[in-house]
Amino acid sequence: MNFLELVKKRQSCRKYLPGIIKKETMVRCLEAARLAPSACNSQPWHFIVVNTPEIKDNLAEKAFSGIYKMNAFAKQASALIVVVRERSQFSAKLGSYFRGVQYSLIDQGIACEHLILQAEEEGLATCWIGWFNEKAVKKFLGVPKIQKIDTIISIGFAENTEIRNKIRKDILEMADFK
Amino acid sequence: MNFLELVKKRQSCRKYLPGIIKKETMVRCLEAARLAPSACNSQPWHFIVVNTPEIKDNLAEKAFSGIYKMNAFAKQASALIVVVRERSQFSAKLGSYFRGVQYSLIDQGIACEHLILQAEEEGLATCWIGWFNEKAVKKFLGVPKIQKIDTIISIGFAENTEIRNKIRKDILEMADFK
Repeated sequence: MNFLELVKKRQSCRKYLPGIIKKETMVRCLEAARLAPSACNSQPWHFIVVNTPEIKDNLAEKAFSGIYKMNAFAKQASALIVVVRERSQFSAKLGSYFRGVQYSLIDQGIACEHLILQAEEEGLATCWIGWFNEKAVKKFLGVPKIQKIDTIISIGFAENTEIRNKIRKDILEMADFK
Repeated sequence: MNFLELVKKRQSCRKYLPGIIKKETMVRCLEAARLAPSACNSQPWHFIVVNTPEIKDNLAEKAFSGIYKMNAFAKQASALIVVVRERSQFSAKLGSYFRGVQYSLIDQGIACEHLILQAEEEGLATCWIGWFNEKAVKKFLGVPKIQKIDTIISIGFAENTEIRNKIRKDILEMADFK
């Protein structure tokens, strides 16, 4: 599968079949994230991989209740990966300050997408989730209050592997050539 | 080449050989970015592909002079891709507001890395650049002052294709298993 095929195959999965993800598969997904580039090589990320069914179910209850219920589908996934934002290196922080851009978020996008694309290559399905009860997740996992959790990735076995058409802007709408 | 091989092969390139990137190659790179996921499918990005040598040289002069000179290497690249942050959709903006996270930056990380990995697969070399004279770049390209340019990607033909060892945190340092 070439890279464009992989990109076309990746899609948000919100219906999962039960199944256990082998640790070596998960490690390969993390390895893809680990090798991601980041501003000043800061690697401002920490992944909490919740792969034990009972812990995952409890976490999902905390994360996706009340106003966050629209993402309750994630409980059916085999695992949840909680992405904690880590501090950037001094030089990256300085750059962010002077340029007015939180490069640690761009970095997180890169690393998580590496993980997600590796999962896709492993035959797993994923979903980026940004809407969850962060406070409850932190309390449950013992993550200090001052830290920030931007993303949870659900990962598991897709109920339906049919590739949906991706609705996107036309290439001429998203790019200019000079 | 499988995905992990592609990820290992991608590295920041700061020495380029001259050469012209075919438009169809560039379009495939943009296509990979176009298909990237984003919060509420906002696609908050616009790519200005500067592929004409004289324009690219002038742009590089503006972008990488004075305190930004450390990135003057980028002038040697065949093309520069200027990434303009676009407004997110209302639902994504609302989510960002309530969650305190600029999801448009995570989205930009994903889309640009798609572009970069496709370029790698095409045999091209790239570099993520966050340190440049944004004001001068906007003026030169006619980008409105209120818009934000977070990233420039240099893209071209690597002088040295030898794969360097990536210095990264150990997997157990960047991840916990529960």
